Amino acid sequence: MKLRELGEDEVVTRLIRSLPVDRRVLVRAGDDCAIVRVAGGLQLLKADCIVEGIHFLPEADPKQIGWKALCRAISDIAAMGGKPLDAVVTVALSREIEFSWLDRVYAGMRNAAKRYGVSLVGGETAQSPGPVFISVALTGTPTDGKYVTRSGGRNLDRLYVTGKLGGSLRGKHLRFHPRMLEAQWLVRKFPIHAMMDLSDGLATDLPRMASASKIGFEIDLAELPRNDQCTVEQALRDGEDYELLFAVAPGAAKRLEIAWRKQFPRIALTCIGRLIKGGATNFREKGFDHFRPE
Amino acid sequence: MKLRELGEDEVVTRLIRSLPVDRRVLVRAGDDCAIVRVAGGLQLLKADCIVEGIHFLPEADPKQIGWKALCRAISDIAAMGGKPLDAVVTVALSREIEFSWLDRVYAGMRNAAKRYGVSLVGGETAQSPGPVFISVALTGTPTDGKYVTRSGGRNLDRLYVTGKLGGSLRGKHLRFHPRMLEAQWLVRKFPIHAMMDLSDGLATDLPRMASASKIGFEIDLAELPRNDQCTVEQALRDGEDYELLFAVAPGAAKRLEIAWRKQFPRIALTCIGRLIKGGATNFREKGFDHFRPE
Repeated sequence: MKLRELGEDEVVTRLIRSLPVDRRVLVRAGDDCAIVRVAGGLQLLKADCIVEGIHFLPEADPKQIGWKALCRAISDIAAMGGKPLDAVVTVALSREIEFSWLDRVYAGMRNAAKRYGVSLVGGETAQSPGPVFISVALTGTPTDGKYVTRSGGRNLDRLYVTGKLGGSLRGKHLRFHPRMLEAQWLVRKFPIHAMMDLSDGLATDLPRMASASKIGFEIDLAELPRNDQCTVEQALRDGEDYELLFAVAPGAAKRLEIAWRKQFPRIALTCIGRLIKGGATNFREKGFDHFRPE
Repeated sequence: MKLRELGEDEVVTRLIRSLPVDRRVLVRAGDDCAIVRVAGGLQLLKADCIVEGIHFLPEADPKQIGWKALCRAISDIAAMGGKPLDAVVTVALSREIEFSWLDRVYAGMRNAAKRYGVSLVGGETAQSPGPVFISVALTGTPTDGKYVTRSGGRNLDRLYVTGKLGGSLRGKHLRFHPRMLEAQWLVRKFPIHAMMDLSDGLATDLPRMASASKIGFEIDLAELPRNDQCTVEQALRDGEDYELLFAVAPGAAKRLEIAWRKQFPRIALTCIGRLIKGGATNFREKGFDHFRPE
């Protein structure tokens, strides 16, 4: 069977089933990052790649390409409440490409690294006869020893998203700011049960969180925070929002909203629904949007 | 200027010049791995990739492709005397590819992971409109707190290579065994001043070690351990040997040779020359092969 017939989630599920891991591995492939126990505590690990023609166009600003390559991995570390530490980078590209182009890709990565306190400790180049590939692997540590997976969501947890959704291809996908400080603040201060970053669109990512948490969901489509000129459909399916989606204990929701507005007055935070037993498991079913917040 | 006009070493040198690193970073891009100080001690970090059409042909056995992808990174961790720990993998490929092919690539990686005690903790797949691209990032720890870089070589150190060189494209490049146990044993027992794995061929890699150690070299071409039916030229330039090249204090050389033969009776160990002030710095000059061991 071809990969496109199985779909990405099923491919990853099948591949990771028999991966060799030892007892040091607390969270593995399938969440935003892996988490392993190392000598000094817990370590987060993430690898991600972007491919010319898929994640960026050849004519894109190379600085923004580099920014995106590193920030995608930072966003995944952040989504578990982690602090990113050290990155190693591999770029595969044609030897006919100008050095100045590659140098600007690295300049974009350097900017992101400085902004988010990452050390760029290794860089390899390899030859590619096809499109440019940029792979970034990033380590991280939990915030105050705490981390949040996708799988801890509980019945009646409130669902929140940061920022606004949709329309990312107009440019935000190359310029977004990972919600690192926001995620660390959330994990430190509130009973966040599940969290992830929205990379493939809410319509794909929320069912992933619900499935990992073995529960359903209800959301209110009218409440979705949308970017200007975006339809609900775009907010659900455009992807590459790199905003946080999280589930918090209902008793803490109001307190969280008030504290958020004080702490991050310029970043929207929206309750879009809740996790609920017997709720929807995907966006193809009818009835996923029954939720109305009180 | 195009990348091919600059050459790989110059490209990497220029790119890493301005990378943001903090004081935790002890060894960075340019050696086999990066080494950073983390909460529990030192951590080795390496990322590497292989690309269809460059590092393997489309018709290669997918299990061997997976084996190679992981073992190249293991070989780099080993080359500093480290123990590999956790790997995260990214595969970019066409969605028209059969799942069974990708599953066999992963089977090859699983075999290598079990053999060398690596946990495969993360796996991503991305779409590629071009060739298959497999990126592996690997963490490691030093052996008994010790590690060896390329840059510690000293005047009169003896130069050794493990195994035999040349002819790798006949198949060894897909089936090689990283010299992990051998490297750990060397680092634990002997004053190894510099070490690296031979991935680009002795003619490229020895000058890299000498340059990093700020010294020249002399080698005896007649002493090069060659695979069957390989010329000296092939032993120097074929690349992808994945054997160890190391420099050891001359006073320890004889003892090391005797102990090696007892410990690893089936793996050749050959003294090929020495590091020496004023010696050759590359294989284009005349006179790099003046060395004759006593």
